[in-house]
Amino acid sequence: MTNRLFFNIKPEFGVFETICKEKKSIGYYNLPEQNLDYLEEYKKDFNSKNREIEHLVIMGIGGSSLGLKAIYRTLKSKKDFTKKIHFLESTDPIAIKTELKKVNFKKTHFFMISKSGTTTETTAIYKYILGLLKEKKISEDYRFTYITDKGSLLEEHAKSKKSFCLYIPKNVGGRFSVLSAVGLTPLSLIEVDIKALLHGAKQIKNSFFENGYIKEILLEKATYYAKNSMKYNINTLFAYSESFKYFIEWYVQLWGESLGKKQLKSSFNVGLTPVGIIGPKDQHSFLQLIVDGLRDKSVTVLKIKNFNYDISIPDINLEKLESMNSINGLSFNSLINFQADSIIETLVNKGDIPVDTIELECINEENLGKFIFYYELLTSLVAQMIGVDAYGQPGVEESKIILKKKLQNRGLS
Amino acid sequence: MTNRLFFNIKPEFGVFETICKEKKSIGYYNLPEQNLDYLEEYKKDFNSKNREIEHLVIMGIGGSSLGLKAIYRTLKSKKDFTKKIHFLESTDPIAIKTELKKVNFKKTHFFMISKSGTTTETTAIYKYILGLLKEKKISEDYRFTYITDKGSLLEEHAKSKKSFCLYIPKNVGGRFSVLSAVGLTPLSLIEVDIKALLHGAKQIKNSFFENGYIKEILLEKATYYAKNSMKYNINTLFAYSESFKYFIEWYVQLWGESLGKKQLKSSFNVGLTPVGIIGPKDQHSFLQLIVDGLRDKSVTVLKIKNFNYDISIPDINLEKLESMNSINGLSFNSLINFQADSIIETLVNKGDIPVDTIELECINEENLGKFIFYYELLTSLVAQMIGVDAYGQPGVEESKIILKKKLQNRGLS
Repeated sequence: MTNRLFFNIKPEFGVFETICKEKKSIGYYNLPEQNLDYLEEYKKDFNSKNREIEHLVIMGIGGSSLGLKAIYRTLKSKKDFTKKIHFLESTDPIAIKTELKKVNFKKTHFFMISKSGTTTETTAIYKYILGLLKEKKISEDYRFTYITDKGSLLEEHAKSKKSFCLYIPKNVGGRFSVLSAVGLTPLSLIEVDIKALLHGAKQIKNSFFENGYIKEILLEKATYYAKNSMKYNINTLFAYSESFKYFIEWYVQLWGESLGKKQLKSSFNVGLTPVGIIGPKDQHSFLQLIVDGLRDKSVTVLKIKNFNYDISIPDINLEKLESMNSINGLSFNSLINFQADSIIETLVNKGDIPVDTIELECINEENLGKFIFYYELLTSLVAQMIGVDAYGQPGVEESKIILKKKLQNRGLS
Repeated sequence: MTNRLFFNIKPEFGVFETICKEKKSIGYYNLPEQNLDYLEEYKKDFNSKNREIEHLVIMGIGGSSLGLKAIYRTLKSKKDFTKKIHFLESTDPIAIKTELKKVNFKKTHFFMISKSGTTTETTAIYKYILGLLKEKKISEDYRFTYITDKGSLLEEHAKSKKSFCLYIPKNVGGRFSVLSAVGLTPLSLIEVDIKALLHGAKQIKNSFFENGYIKEILLEKATYYAKNSMKYNINTLFAYSESFKYFIEWYVQLWGESLGKKQLKSSFNVGLTPVGIIGPKDQHSFLQLIVDGLRDKSVTVLKIKNFNYDISIPDINLEKLESMNSINGLSFNSLINFQADSIIETLVNKGDIPVDTIELECINEENLGKFIFYYELLTSLVAQMIGVDAYGQPGVEESKIILKKKLQNRGLS
């Protein structure tokens, strides 16, 4: 992974010390070195009790699904897995129907993932699935894996059943949990290379904490974003790979939910807004706004050097469209990267749009691990610099209370 | 469709006259009343020459795919169509491979949609498909439908082949073209109710131009957005329906590409940034940023009154999770709308977030037509008020020229 900034500012080196202190109490920093024995044991236990499982259904929402989904979908575009993973992450009845149509319940294992253990959406779906199992006369035994905080009510519930239960490590927030049991447990069942994923994350971690190349780049980028947070209040991630479309959703949660906060000292509303777009498709949608619109956006262009799938534009001459012959013989891999380069040049030329580029050598577990940890570190740094707590989400509580009241009163009207 | 604003401002009624004038020269305003004979003739011709077509593959990007995709995917969540539509809208080689894996070439008809006729991505894919057809020894005759501007090089190319060719009406821009041949032609082949779609659009059009209820609402909303465009520079569409996830992409193009412009009089960079999110999923992602973050966002909550798919949460008591019994017996349809209502109440309570709500009775062609025309009108109004030309996209030309140079020089390095 390389990262090149087309802007410069003197980095706030002081924040590095704060992050080194924070590292001792915030759990996600330690995930790259976690002991994986629990996964081996789980897999053994799982395989002894489950046969012919072809579908894994994830009941989870937000931090309990986005990271896992991003890794799964990105890798799935490159290889076929023996089991399919499905996601139930909405209370939309049509979405539930559409997703469940694809699975054979007898060959399905369900994951209930909830940090608090009492997420409304996930519990509603869980109850619905239990009802269907009963209707189909399929045993619940060992059909569920629960992933939750130690001590949650869901853990107690899990223990009342013949089931599997795994834990989210202490002080790991939902949106920072993809490299914990939340992401790794389902991925380990479909033979994703977990070790490579963590190894990638570890390389970025070490490069940052041990004064490697990524330390100054991350500090400089974070400083620029933080110091200009009122002017460039939108941070666009422009990924030139359709495979990354779910990573963009993961990025949106990580960035938005961590940085959109009341400032710790002032209680002012501050925050940076993430926007994820995909190239070249969104050159025909969002690009006009970046180029000619209000100067309120930074842009990070993500490139994949080798797609490792070699198809080319044949040397065909189209009658009346001879002007299009310049693309003949070109591989699509080259074309998409020429397109990305043209956009980078266009945006840098403007002079008042902060641009940087991230290039991954190819799509594999190691590089996804790097990408994940890079963005997690950047998020922690910017949060420190704009003076917010990256790790809570107090703003969503109010609507939960209002919903609770509406649900309690529904019988009364 | 109902639309309720939780903010108020005196509408700029003067802009209504400007729009009435503009209506005479800008093509999209006339689409609801178009004569559909051309579609009937096309269908007859198509059916006489094509048998056993099961797949329609769309080669198009931006305005040539987003609207069609939005309608197709939204309706597909509700009913099964006899033919499947696939979209090739990227030069990402992995995306091309993944999509083409799903089709049987012998039973496939291809649409090449390009307003200019010389879109790089679309032409590259077209050549690739031609190469595959030759390889598979499948005849090209009547296997392609071309949709383009009258007089384009693509029209001339189409005429050199045994094929179908349809036109985008004069002065209809790509992102405003979904209700023209661009969207209607493929949709008519899969038995979507085109007349209902246009009838919905016409109702909103008439209500606006003939002093109906939508006129004052649209003018007031547009005035608020335009007058506050420097403060609330982000407009969030929060749709409580997974089926709308592609409509959100259509909205992003329509809004961003129309409004992100140099101002006509000053040549200042101005614009409003669209963000599309889906409820309740994004309550666990983007909501924190809206509630506690910088006050730079307006929010439109879209609700579907009747999902017309009745599944309920069974009356199951979960050991240790008895606190979650308040949702028992509730339909998912009610739950998702209670969730939307809780968010609306939360955001309105803040007092400094501009909120409005759109409610559709159900998901069907007529309501989608209304939704489309509502947003097109709103876009035209805001463009007038912030002083930009909604209908061009001059900002994307520079990168096309740079790409062209890179392609021409590639042999030379």
